[in-house]
Amino acid sequence: MFDFKVLSRSTNTAGRVGRLSTPHGILSTPQFMPVGTLGTVKGITATQLKDTNAQMILANTFHLHLQPGEAIIKESGGLHSFMSWDQPILTDSGGYQVFSLGKLNKIDDFGVSFKSPRDGSHIELTPEKAIQIQMDLGADVVMAFDQCPPYPASKVEVEEACKRTHLWLERCVATHSKEDQALFGIVQGGCFLDLREESARRVASFHLPGIAIGGVSVGEPSDQIHKIVRHVAPLLPNEVPRYLMGIGTIREMAVAVANGVDFFDCVLPTRLGRHGTALVRDERWNLRNACFRNDYQPLDTTCVCETCTNYNRAYLHHLIRNDELLGLTLLSLHNLSHLIRFSRAMAVAIEDDCFSEDFAPWQKSSIAHYTW
Amino acid sequence: MFDFKVLSRSTNTAGRVGRLSTPHGILSTPQFMPVGTLGTVKGITATQLKDTNAQMILANTFHLHLQPGEAIIKESGGLHSFMSWDQPILTDSGGYQVFSLGKLNKIDDFGVSFKSPRDGSHIELTPEKAIQIQMDLGADVVMAFDQCPPYPASKVEVEEACKRTHLWLERCVATHSKEDQALFGIVQGGCFLDLREESARRVASFHLPGIAIGGVSVGEPSDQIHKIVRHVAPLLPNEVPRYLMGIGTIREMAVAVANGVDFFDCVLPTRLGRHGTALVRDERWNLRNACFRNDYQPLDTTCVCETCTNYNRAYLHHLIRNDELLGLTLLSLHNLSHLIRFSRAMAVAIEDDCFSEDFAPWQKSSIAHYTW
Repeated sequence: MFDFKVLSRSTNTAGRVGRLSTPHGILSTPQFMPVGTLGTVKGITATQLKDTNAQMILANTFHLHLQPGEAIIKESGGLHSFMSWDQPILTDSGGYQVFSLGKLNKIDDFGVSFKSPRDGSHIELTPEKAIQIQMDLGADVVMAFDQCPPYPASKVEVEEACKRTHLWLERCVATHSKEDQALFGIVQGGCFLDLREESARRVASFHLPGIAIGGVSVGEPSDQIHKIVRHVAPLLPNEVPRYLMGIGTIREMAVAVANGVDFFDCVLPTRLGRHGTALVRDERWNLRNACFRNDYQPLDTTCVCETCTNYNRAYLHHLIRNDELLGLTLLSLHNLSHLIRFSRAMAVAIEDDCFSEDFAPWQKSSIAHYTW
Repeated sequence: MFDFKVLSRSTNTAGRVGRLSTPHGILSTPQFMPVGTLGTVKGITATQLKDTNAQMILANTFHLHLQPGEAIIKESGGLHSFMSWDQPILTDSGGYQVFSLGKLNKIDDFGVSFKSPRDGSHIELTPEKAIQIQMDLGADVVMAFDQCPPYPASKVEVEEACKRTHLWLERCVATHSKEDQALFGIVQGGCFLDLREESARRVASFHLPGIAIGGVSVGEPSDQIHKIVRHVAPLLPNEVPRYLMGIGTIREMAVAVANGVDFFDCVLPTRLGRHGTALVRDERWNLRNACFRNDYQPLDTTCVCETCTNYNRAYLHHLIRNDELLGLTLLSLHNLSHLIRFSRAMAVAIEDDCFSEDFAPWQKSSIAHYTW
């Protein structure tokens, strides 16, 4: 039911083109996953989301457990049916959110108890419960419950989080029993490369159908992200998909793909869209800026998304200036399309062996310009 | 370029099915027009709007004059191009908004001066200027600049507003010079039937390609609306389309159509949608209500709109409860589809001569049930 094939490899990088088969269809890698925290990619219908060429999307177990609760979603026929998305879905485990959003009461090897940021109620999450919730939600890919240390954190703290993450992974594996769902493990270790190595070795030893690099993009500078990715990705099993969590910027995606990472998720394209910012090439444009007031070109003249095909910059400026809902939707649609387009350009460049870490296909001087 | 044909008539009411041809296509009447105040039907793309079966939409001259200004829209290729809507558009004249939203400084026979509700700047509108702005915006149908008295108002006040409206209409007609654009006159007169009669006679005497009943739905009870419509609609010229401004409730639309009105506009379906309310049959459902929490039926089981085809009530409840943008979009889409569907059901019932003022085709006992 799950199958990952590497279809093509780059010779001068570790970049690869792959295909992950899931019960709800294909994930072509390299790929970017839009984030639908509460079972909705904010402001975007399922039909529009398909038009961005999105394949797999991510939803958050932590948020969905708090509202509407996994019982409602299970009764509704599972998350695919609930949110009307018939393509692959991945749920994270809630680990990251427990530590970033919850008011922690207690954490020990058994699990975590915290106050709901929603209504202050007492909530307990354990590896067993996180997996049970994810089985109820019914995504195609589910993530192990991990402890994600903040940045910065001392080596002792990170080491403890790693040990707990590995202990919990064993219990996640023991609990998970849904055949049409793949459980991925998560490598932690913060910015400490020896801890990352040990974590990669331990997580790989479970021989799961996929593996993720977690605990990045938690506040560390981007050269740290690059250092971690360059060090960890080559240590991961070759035959399964590799997922770098929480990354969604052009440069970090290219570096990660060049080091053998297969897919990504990030709230950035939709969050930026809701704040009036558009992704164009590797730039961020604030559409509130007066320079767009009478600019009648498409947002990105090279993009074929719904936004760029139908509307001009002056109109988007007008919508954003007037806090019109449509502006947020149109910019989010473009930003998602942009990162997915970049993913597909990387795939073509890998197939044609003109991919590199500094991949920037919009540049006319790039040998990979034709992929854009 | 403009042509209105009555295709079918009801025998027991004054209801009629018609077709207005415009430079951007057909308006099949009876019909409901979505409102896109600032050149956007809030939260809805042009593609989604077409899926509601919308034909002609309304945009507001007052708002578009304040932002982004007609110069930007004209330079962008006109309103159709600016907002990417290639079907018919009607712009109102700004008269209603000047009196309801502006801080009036002065009103006399020359025109109106007021403070912009946006930035406090001094703005002057005259019949000539309102028409010039609308010619720049480039809609298919434009409305005469009128004085819309509030409710309640004394007979002397309403009479003065009528006289001014007729005086201004003459200047609107003299100013309007765009051949691919039709100018409609507006009948005023408040709740005073003799003033309404006089206004209908005066406006009709201009032999314009369309005529509207204005100054309703300004706060008066619905039996007053019915009284005005029943009295005025039969006095209007037979050979041109008749537009009842600001109406968008099932009952008022049916009464108006039964008295020979052809089309409508109203912000209600989108405004209600943004507040979490759905139109189902002739009811309003608040999707926040806990009864929808685990209701897995489509919103309206008889509706084929994008919302009802793809999502269930529990999901919509979840979105609305969590203030998710998508909830507002999905409810607005359904509400628009609902009123347009009701319009088309009225058309079928008129063609088959089973239409009546109390038309309620969702009732199984209705002889027109098949039209739903």
